[in-house]
Amino acid sequence: MNKGTHIMFDYDNLMESEYINTKMFTENIIKLLDKTIEQSNLNEIDRSINIFDDDNNKTPPGFAIVVVLDESHISFHSYTKLGILAIDIFTCGECSKDNTRKAGDIIMNILEKTYPSINLKQKYEIKRFIY
Amino acid sequence: MNKGTHIMFDYDNLMESEYINTKMFTENIIKLLDKTIEQSNLNEIDRSINIFDDDNNKTPPGFAIVVVLDESHISFHSYTKLGILAIDIFTCGECSKDNTRKAGDIIMNILEKTYPSINLKQKYEIKRFIY
Repeated sequence: MNKGTHIMFDYDNLMESEYINTKMFTENIIKLLDKTIEQSNLNEIDRSINIFDDDNNKTPPGFAIVVVLDESHISFHSYTKLGILAIDIFTCGECSKDNTRKAGDIIMNILEKTYPSINLKQKYEIKRFIY
Repeated sequence: MNKGTHIMFDYDNLMESEYINTKMFTENIIKLLDKTIEQSNLNEIDRSINIFDDDNNKTPPGFAIVVVLDESHISFHSYTKLGILAIDIFTCGECSKDNTRKAGDIIMNILEKTYPSINLKQKYEIKRFIY
């Protein structure tokens, strides 16, 4: 038995010709997140959206988006110049496994339809608090 | 070669007699996080602190704290009634492995000194974007 599931996706081969620019890409990922939360019946508590502009000299261009759920979270970190996108989905409430997988499936389906060149390099599923 | 490291800690056996109440526990975890970020030379962008009070009927008591770093994050989720604390540290910048491990070590040291009864049930280290 376990309490909570942590799923991670490593996507690469993101093409600038598909996502256009960091700002547009961020807006599309926010729409994807809204849809995922609604369809997976997750309870959003807070979100933090941070865009690193293409002309920002301090940080490589990309974004960091974290949605805090009811005692869990979904995060998206993108490094657009490298064409990579790191996602993690952690749920540790009663909903757990099914909702985590459902959210993961929705994210994968939308991402892969919207950005056909994107490639799922690695996927991990970690069971947390195994008893 | 990999880009980014994701470390997860599953702590259990957290005793109410040690953490006193959810509010005090949250305050102590925030201090721990401040020290970790400073000593690991991590670059904080934003943070989201959400306390689920002991008398909140909707959500089991605990907290969800996420610190967004420069294109990465640290999260703490606690379910105090169950005595468990789930932590994840993800760094995917140039700093990566060393900083992730350093942050993890600082968190473990402070937690285990402050709450002697706490027990590290599982620890996971996932290499992201393996090439």
